[in-house]
Amino acid sequence: MTSWLPTLITATPEEGYDLAVKLARIAVKKTQPDADIRDRLRPEYAEDADSLIAVSQVVATHFATISAANGYWRDAS
Amino acid sequence: MTSWLPTLITATPEEGYDLAVKLARIAVKKTQPDADIRDRLRPEYAEDADSLIAVSQVVATHFATISAANGYWRDAS
Amino acid sequence: MTSWLPTLITATPEEGYDLAVKLARIAVKKTQPDADIRDRLRPEYAEDADSLIAVSQVVATHFATISAANGYWRDAS
Amino acid sequence: MTSWLPTLITATPEEGYDLAVKLARIAVKKTQPDADIRDRLRPEYAEDADSLIAVSQVVATHFATISAANGYWRDAS
Amino acid sequence: MTSWLPTLITATPEEGYDLAVKLARIAVKKTQPDADIRDRLRPEYAEDADSLIAVSQVVATHFATISAANGYWRDAS
Amino acid sequence: MTSWLPTLITATPEEGYDLAVKLARIAVKKTQPDADIRDRLRPEYAEDADSLIAVSQVVATHFATISAANGYWRDAS
Repeated sequence: MTSWLPTLITATPEEGYDLAVKLARIAVKKTQPDADIRDRLRPEYAEDADSLIAVSQVVATHFATISAANGYWRDAS
Repeated sequence: MTSWLPTLITATPEEGYDLAVKLARIAVKKTQPDADIRDRLRPEYAEDADSLIAVSQVVATHFATISAANGYWRDAS
Repeated sequence: MTSWLPTLITATPEEGYDLAVKLARIAVKKTQPDADIRDRLRPEYAEDADSLIAVSQVVATHFATISAANGYWRDAS
Repeated sequence: MTSWLPTLITATPEEGYDLAVKLARIAVKKTQPDADIRDRLRPEYAEDADSLIAVSQVVATHFATISAANGYWRDAS
Repeated sequence: MTSWLPTLITATPEEGYDLAVKLARIAVKKTQPDADIRDRLRPEYAEDADSLIAVSQVVATHFATISAANGYWRDAS
Repeated sequence: MTSWLPTLITATPEEGYDLAVKLARIAVKKTQPDADIRDRLRPEYAEDADSLIAVSQVVATHFATISAANGYWRDAS
């Protein structure tokens, strides 16, 4: 039984950022489970500046959480 | 007497994320208690990219709270 | 002399969530004190998906504050 | 020489909330210093549901800050 | 060699708030470096209620950071 | 093997702010990897006041994270 989110701990800030991107996308999938509809919506936001900025805002919020979880990777620099 | 939110503590990050999704939805129910109206609104946001991103933002905010509550599941990895 | 907000401390997470909903509404009342106008605006947001999501975002922000105030009810589960 | 913001410390949560409302308004005044223009804009947001929700979001963010500053008034209940 | 942001520490909450306003504006300058375009855009947001509220939201986020940096000026009251 | 984000630690608040701007942009690139499309979108947000304010909001969220990671540069003033 695998989990899509076994931990918030990552080796590096970069991996933490990638996890933040993933967390932002999961909520969309859980709200709209139909992959065909999501595919149809993709150009609607991926080619719209304001949508992309809004995605970036969600990522920033998750990255704050993940950064705190990892003690800001203070020993990783 | 059951509660819909007995605790913020979850066994894993994944369960914490699911709880965040639930918390995001409860506020909608409390603001619009009529299930028929909510059902009518569902396609309005579930098929709109910007609405889905906004939902993801709410989930991200709740996930931050739940993650802090659980000490970021640092021992769960 | 009663206060509408005597404390942020609640017995349970569920009561904390209800307080978050209340805090979200108070700002609206303070910005638009006229109850007739607020009543007129109600269908405008209670039947609009994006408005409901925005309300949920405000609730999420207040719930974060109230959860921290209550030490995340870690002993309440 | 008086200050409009001598401290973030308030006696009660309710006073803290009022301070949050004040902090939300000050940024508007600093960005649009012309009181006549602000007065003209007032009905534009005070009679618009989405604007009122957005104001409530700003208040929520400031209330989080003020609540933390006051140790969540844990001894005030 | 001067810095536009040598420190987040300010003597008073009021100065902290002014710094938050400054931080909100810098991101705009970095994204749109052309001062002529920024000047042209100014009435677009300074006379629009929703834009002013959005500016206030950015200021609130920065003010939270600056307040934490200053230990909420607990000894300054 | 170089990383685009080896650490959240910066020497000064100003460098921290620049890193926040960078973090805000990376999410856009990860969501829209096509540089040609991003270039086409640029005037859409760089000449729109509300888009610029939204960018500033994302930067503010990342700056909060980076400031906390750096202990608010309390010894750097």
